[in-house]
Amino acid sequence: MAEYTEIPYPRLWDFCSRLFPSYGFSAEEGKTIAEILLRADLFGIESHGIHRLVRYDEEIKTGMVTVRAKPEIIHETPVSAVVDGHKAMGQLTAVRAMELAIEKASHSGIGMVTVRNSNHYGIAGYYTGLALEADFIGITMTNTEAICVPTNGKRAMLGTNPIAFAMPADPLPFSFDASTTMVTRGTMEVYQKSGKPIPDNWAVDTIGHPTTDAGEVVRNIIGKFGGGIAPLGGSSETGGGHKGYGLATMVDICCGILSGGLTSNHINIKPGETGICHYFAAIDYGIFGNKKEQKHALSVFLEELRSSPRVDGKDRIYTHGEKAMETMAARINGVIPVNEKTLGEMRNIASRQGVVCDIAP
Amino acid sequence: MAEYTEIPYPRLWDFCSRLFPSYGFSAEEGKTIAEILLRADLFGIESHGIHRLVRYDEEIKTGMVTVRAKPEIIHETPVSAVVDGHKAMGQLTAVRAMELAIEKASHSGIGMVTVRNSNHYGIAGYYTGLALEADFIGITMTNTEAICVPTNGKRAMLGTNPIAFAMPADPLPFSFDASTTMVTRGTMEVYQKSGKPIPDNWAVDTIGHPTTDAGEVVRNIIGKFGGGIAPLGGSSETGGGHKGYGLATMVDICCGILSGGLTSNHINIKPGETGICHYFAAIDYGIFGNKKEQKHALSVFLEELRSSPRVDGKDRIYTHGEKAMETMAARINGVIPVNEKTLGEMRNIASRQGVVCDIAP
Repeated sequence: MAEYTEIPYPRLWDFCSRLFPSYGFSAEEGKTIAEILLRADLFGIESHGIHRLVRYDEEIKTGMVTVRAKPEIIHETPVSAVVDGHKAMGQLTAVRAMELAIEKASHSGIGMVTVRNSNHYGIAGYYTGLALEADFIGITMTNTEAICVPTNGKRAMLGTNPIAFAMPADPLPFSFDASTTMVTRGTMEVYQKSGKPIPDNWAVDTIGHPTTDAGEVVRNIIGKFGGGIAPLGGSSETGGGHKGYGLATMVDICCGILSGGLTSNHINIKPGETGICHYFAAIDYGIFGNKKEQKHALSVFLEELRSSPRVDGKDRIYTHGEKAMETMAARINGVIPVNEKTLGEMRNIASRQGVVCDIAP
Repeated sequence: MAEYTEIPYPRLWDFCSRLFPSYGFSAEEGKTIAEILLRADLFGIESHGIHRLVRYDEEIKTGMVTVRAKPEIIHETPVSAVVDGHKAMGQLTAVRAMELAIEKASHSGIGMVTVRNSNHYGIAGYYTGLALEADFIGITMTNTEAICVPTNGKRAMLGTNPIAFAMPADPLPFSFDASTTMVTRGTMEVYQKSGKPIPDNWAVDTIGHPTTDAGEVVRNIIGKFGGGIAPLGGSSETGGGHKGYGLATMVDICCGILSGGLTSNHINIKPGETGICHYFAAIDYGIFGNKKEQKHALSVFLEELRSSPRVDGKDRIYTHGEKAMETMAARINGVIPVNEKTLGEMRNIASRQGVVCDIAP
């Protein structure tokens, strides 16, 4: 079992915002990266938080991420833009792209921005949150390294390709953020560490047959030996796997095709760059009438879902975003549980970068 | 086993286009309804084709559908509109709404149209096909009567809530069209007729526990006794059911909330109207750069998916829309298999409406 140390959130934030400038990022950029990275931990999504620092560190050190690159708008209309990330840190490019979508929505009602030549952008729900702050609907998608096997296939061709969609409501917005695969690689790694078998519709082996061995799946993904994770719905049509496969393809169209960039099956293939692509949209829902009435109608609908009859033994019916926002409310003035292994990685990185790592007792 | 009679497509089309004017629709309207209804049969999607005639007939006869109603634009911007269907036939309102989205996309690059007070609109993929004809990306969603149970719940609160997304490519477009539930009521009815058990993650009973009895599920849905079909991913979070639940909620936001209409849980509740709502979008993908290059890139990507390594024993990896378009190519100059029960219903309706039914030998 993994051991966890509880670290006060402000200490973690302080450490990250000091660490990133040590690579050459500005103080402002360091704060932005720290905020997005740690938002995942605040939301309780360990796989996308400080746990991932070691991978960002490696991408910066190996030049997959170019520290001084600035994203550039290469095509623009009143409702759209295409941004070339020039291999800048995904989080910095993504914030700029969503801000651009919001600017366009402020003037035109809708703004859609696609991004090519970017990098892993962290937690998708952070960017839809920027649209919520502007009282807009926010949408984002990203492709990733191929990890998902199409229906009837045995080679990973699509990424985890998440879709995030959020709209303001009271007391909490609707904020959906989910991969279009059964699970992510992070979950597979958790099962691998625990030695427990995975359910038999989560992944397929190198010949495309269902496997319950998480370690085998992770090794096959890393080694690109074949097989991978099943699309949402599973590896057969019986469970609706062709639907997850279709949604993942749609995400690759919005990200890779509409940005003139790469699709998942070409991500992380060329040395020295990932080629990850994103999609962002902001919609001023006032283009459909009275915003106050729409927001109220959504608030009522979400409450109807939450208060509908529950299965015996289940405490609650959640609407999307509730769990994350409740976890954040508890953690922002409290502590974040950090895996001992992650803590070791943080200390090593800090030592090499010459940054004080006074995060734990 | 159901018996099928093969009927030449032109005869079916001729019959439908003569039948609908007998209710009071214009000749032009009759042709539009016939074309959309039978497109499902051409695509090989029996559940949404002529099989459904008996339900449309009933909705017209009982006044759920108002024959002489005309959809009305009640709010409009250069990129958006809200349409009140005034209970007109769903297909007629939907064609008008997608045409409006296409008009707006022609001028503004993007057009989004939401519709309230409509009716069942048939096959979603027909409307994204209209956008394809304009060389645009097409998107549509619709809510339906509640049939889908939220994660941890035991009452159906969401519809089958399909999402359709299409973009032009060669030799065939990408055309995704799928419910956000494990299956539709139609599939459940097919299992009921056959007496075969359904897989145990497709549906839950009145207390929210998995059931394999399709007949029980259908009776519970019709009687509104509780339970229903699971969201895509199944009834638990292990299979990703919370993702399907989130996608279904997103569809209800785009349709019911953004049109100022009803959400799925209020559809078919008030006597004399369904209250079904839709969402349509058209995007001129030229707002993201060179259309020829993007279309080519998508064509290459789809071919890469189709030609990726297959599981032994599987003939093909499909991309979305291929099956439907190949079936249509074979059937449009050929025959449509029509269930004997459906044939009987057609003859009864024709006789009552005073329309000649010379469709079968």
